[in-house]
Amino acid sequence: MVGIAPRLRIVDLTHGVPRHDVRRGALVLRNALPYLPAAVVLAVVDPQVGGERRAVALRCDDGRLLVGPDNGLLSLAWERAGGVHVAVDVTRSPHRLDPVSATFHGRDLFAPVAAALATGATVEDAGEPIDPATLTALELPRPRVEADGALAAHAVAVDGYGNVTLDAGHADLAGTGLTLGARVEVEAAGRTRRARFTTAFADVPPGETILYEDASRSLALAVNRGDAAAELGLEPDAEVRLRPA
Amino acid sequence: MVGIAPRLRIVDLTHGVPRHDVRRGALVLRNALPYLPAAVVLAVVDPQVGGERRAVALRCDDGRLLVGPDNGLLSLAWERAGGVHVAVDVTRSPHRLDPVSATFHGRDLFAPVAAALATGATVEDAGEPIDPATLTALELPRPRVEADGALAAHAVAVDGYGNVTLDAGHADLAGTGLTLGARVEVEAAGRTRRARFTTAFADVPPGETILYEDASRSLALAVNRGDAAAELGLEPDAEVRLRPA
Amino acid sequence: MVGIAPRLRIVDLTHGVPRHDVRRGALVLRNALPYLPAAVVLAVVDPQVGGERRAVALRCDDGRLLVGPDNGLLSLAWERAGGVHVAVDVTRSPHRLDPVSATFHGRDLFAPVAAALATGATVEDAGEPIDPATLTALELPRPRVEADGALAAHAVAVDGYGNVTLDAGHADLAGTGLTLGARVEVEAAGRTRRARFTTAFADVPPGETILYEDASRSLALAVNRGDAAAELGLEPDAEVRLRPA
Repeated sequence: MVGIAPRLRIVDLTHGVPRHDVRRGALVLRNALPYLPAAVVLAVVDPQVGGERRAVALRCDDGRLLVGPDNGLLSLAWERAGGVHVAVDVTRSPHRLDPVSATFHGRDLFAPVAAALATGATVEDAGEPIDPATLTALELPRPRVEADGALAAHAVAVDGYGNVTLDAGHADLAGTGLTLGARVEVEAAGRTRRARFTTAFADVPPGETILYEDASRSLALAVNRGDAAAELGLEPDAEVRLRPA
Repeated sequence: MVGIAPRLRIVDLTHGVPRHDVRRGALVLRNALPYLPAAVVLAVVDPQVGGERRAVALRCDDGRLLVGPDNGLLSLAWERAGGVHVAVDVTRSPHRLDPVSATFHGRDLFAPVAAALATGATVEDAGEPIDPATLTALELPRPRVEADGALAAHAVAVDGYGNVTLDAGHADLAGTGLTLGARVEVEAAGRTRRARFTTAFADVPPGETILYEDASRSLALAVNRGDAAAELGLEPDAEVRLRPA
Repeated sequence: MVGIAPRLRIVDLTHGVPRHDVRRGALVLRNALPYLPAAVVLAVVDPQVGGERRAVALRCDDGRLLVGPDNGLLSLAWERAGGVHVAVDVTRSPHRLDPVSATFHGRDLFAPVAAALATGATVEDAGEPIDPATLTALELPRPRVEADGALAAHAVAVDGYGNVTLDAGHADLAGTGLTLGARVEVEAAGRTRRARFTTAFADVPPGETILYEDASRSLALAVNRGDAAAELGLEPDAEVRLRPA
C-alpha cells in the first residue's frame, strides 16, 4: 500500500482475530468503527479465498468506504454506517496486482484496491457494480426473555482475556428484574453460578464473576483477573440464562 | 488518537506484556525510555480499571510526559526521568471521550489525553492537580550478599525467550568473587546448576546456562537457544543464589 | 530509528518469525521483497548475537539496501535482488549506539545503521568493506524426481495456519504426471494420504488436503480450515513424496 500511495497513513486495528473467525472479525470492526477517523476500512478474514465468494468495495450511506471479502465480515460495520449506498465487485479491479494469487487476496486484491481508494479513486471505478441487497450479511443470535423472566442470551465473542460478549444490551433486561448492583444467577453449559451485575472488574474480589456492560455497550461476563470463557465453559453461540439470584 | 491529532506519530513499543502484569510493563517501559525520542509516553496495564486507582498524567523533571493508571506502571520510568514535577488526575479530564466506559480507559481516557498532550495541551490543563508524593510506586525486591558470600537476588521478569532478568547489576557483585569468565553455581527452586558468567549467548554451547549483563544492564540468566525460566523453574520474585563454582 | 531519522517511514513486515528460525525469516523476507517499495530492509533473527557472526550492510545489484546479521537471513533476499554489489561489516559502524550491548544488536547496531542509511548515508561509509563472496548463504534442500516418477520434495516452512511450503515449484513437476486437477498421493512421515492438486482451499471440503501453488509461487500443502503441518506430521526439512493417485 505504501508503494501505491506513499503518503498513506495506515492504522493497524488488529492482527489478533482468530483464523477463519469471520464473526469475531465483524464484531471487532463494528465496535471499532465509531472510534475511527474518516478512512478507507480494509478488513480480511477470508476462509473462502479463491472460491466463490465475491470481493467487494462499498460506500456506506455515511460516506465511509469498506473493502474486503463478501462473507459477512463487513456487514455489522455497514449496518452501523447506515447501510450500503454503492457496491462493486473488485475481483477484476483495475487496481489489482497482476497476477492475483489464488490464496492471498489481502495482498494482491484488497490492499491495492484500498490504497487506490485512499488516494481518491472512486468506488464506482474500482470494480463491477452489484446490487447491495445481494451482499452477505451475518445473522447474529437474538436474546429473548423466557416465561420465568430469565434472559436467554448467547455468547457472541470471547476476547483475549476470556471476557465473553453476549448478544444482549441494557434494553434487553426489561422484565427480567436484573438491575445494576443485583446478584445474578448465570446458567451456562449445564452449570449455575453466582455473579454480580456491576460496572467494573474491580467491584468484586479476584476470582469472582461479573455481568457488566462492556466497552462496546454489550452485556458481557467476566471473571476479575480470571478467564470467564474457560471457567464458565462458554464458546461462541453457547446459550446463557441470566436471572436474579 | 489519529482522529484527535492527525499528524501524530505513534511508536508502538509493545503489545506483548502479559495481561495484568504491571511490574513487567513497568520494567519494559523503564528499559525502553533511554531509547525513545522526546514524546508523550502512554502506557496501559490496568487490572483495576473502573475501580479506585487514579488515572494520571505526569510531567517528569526531565520534561518527559507520562500518561497511564496510577498503579506503579509508570513509576520505574519516572525514577529514570528524574522524578515527577507535576501530576494531575485525568479521571475527569476535559480531553476524555464522553461517555467513558468502565472497562476500557485505554480508549476513552488515556489515549485521548495523550493525544491532546502531543498536540501541545499542558499537563496542568489535563486534569486535577495531585501531590506527586501520593503516586503509587513499585517496590522491587533488593538483592543482598549473604554471610557465605553468595549473592541472593530475585527474578524480576521473564522475556519471550525465557531469559530471566534479576534485580541485581554489576555493582552488586562486590564481595561475591564472581567475575566475568568465572563458573557460577546457580541455586534456584531448590536445585543447583552450573552456569558461566559471560557476555553473550554464543559463548557457550546450546543448552548451557549463562549469567550475563543484559541489554538493560541488569544481571540475567539465559540458556543458549533454550528457556532459562522453564529449565530453572523461575518465576518473578523467586530467589536465586549465585556463588563461584 | 525515529530519534535518528524523525521523518522515517517504517513498515513492519512481521514480528511473527519463530525465535532463532533464520531460514523461516529468510523465506519471509524473500517472499515479501517483490512487494516492498524502495527501502532499506532491516532484518534481525540472530541466535548468534554477540558471537562470531558478522553484522553487515549490503547494497544489492538492483540498488536495494539490506542490514542484518551475516547468518544467511539476508541471502535469499539478495539472490532475488540480483546479488550483492557492495558489502560492509558494521560491527564498529560510526552509526552504532555507544555502548553496543552484547545481546541486543537489533537495538544498538542494526536499527541505527538502517536509520542512517534511510537518511542518505552510504553503505560504504557504514562499515569496513568485506568481500561479498564471503557472506553466509543459506542452502535450501533441492527436490528431485525419483525413478518411479515421484517428486521428492521437502518442507521448508510452516506458516501460522499450518500450511507447508515445499522447496519445489511448478517447473519441478515435469515428468511426474502431476497436473492441475489431478488426485495426488502424498507420502510424508511414514504415512500416505490423498490430496487434490488445485488452486484454492475452497476447491475441497473442509478437512481435505490440497497441493497448490502458494502466494510465493512455491508448491505447498494445506488442509482446508485445518492444519496441514500437524495432520501430516511435517516439520521443516521433512521429505515429502508426491505422485499421481
